[in-house]
Amino acid sequence: MNAVLIARYYVIPGNSKAVGEALAKMAVRVKADEPACLLYNANIDPENENLYCLYEVYKDSASIAAHRDTPHFKEIIEGIIVPLLEKREREIYTQLIG
Amino acid sequence: MNAVLIARYYVIPGNSKAVGEALAKMAVRVKADEPACLLYNANIDPENENLYCLYEVYKDSASIAAHRDTPHFKEIIEGIIVPLLEKREREIYTQLIG
Repeated sequence: MNAVLIARYYVIPGNSKAVGEALAKMAVRVKADEPACLLYNANIDPENENLYCLYEVYKDSASIAAHRDTPHFKEIIEGIIVPLLEKREREIYTQLIG
Repeated sequence: MNAVLIARYYVIPGNSKAVGEALAKMAVRVKADEPACLLYNANIDPENENLYCLYEVYKDSASIAAHRDTPHFKEIIEGIIVPLLEKREREIYTQLIG
């Protein structure tokens, strides 16, 4: 069954634009290289530019693990974005209706 | 810009199946009657059958308000599901990448 990852990024103030630009690059790489990623949405809190919420759908939970092993995850998420965050949170779900 | 609603439903134990069935009916009604709803996903925590997470994308924030005024929202969400919940939470985002 499809597996869903929801990730929240709490950005260190002053870095929201840089995080948004990095996420746009990340989405291009995911779309190009990860056919098992069925949906990759990045959203921002309209009242707090320092809170991003990603919603990602994969064909199974193994594909979520594989996502974290990709070069673009290491380069963009771990290399560029994580140093700009105060913290991040994640939740995993199983998709029932989509 | 597209507006995103994330809703979490914490189900009173013993009612998870009934909530899942009602959400399946809700999704059919949303798809039939709400062209402004671009995505309607319902997910469940694989480790807790009493936690559902909905992810809904609308063409704008006014369409989220309109969603809550539909007959199917009143009938299925408020009429059937809410009485089976301990609590619910919601978050609103603006979609940047989707």
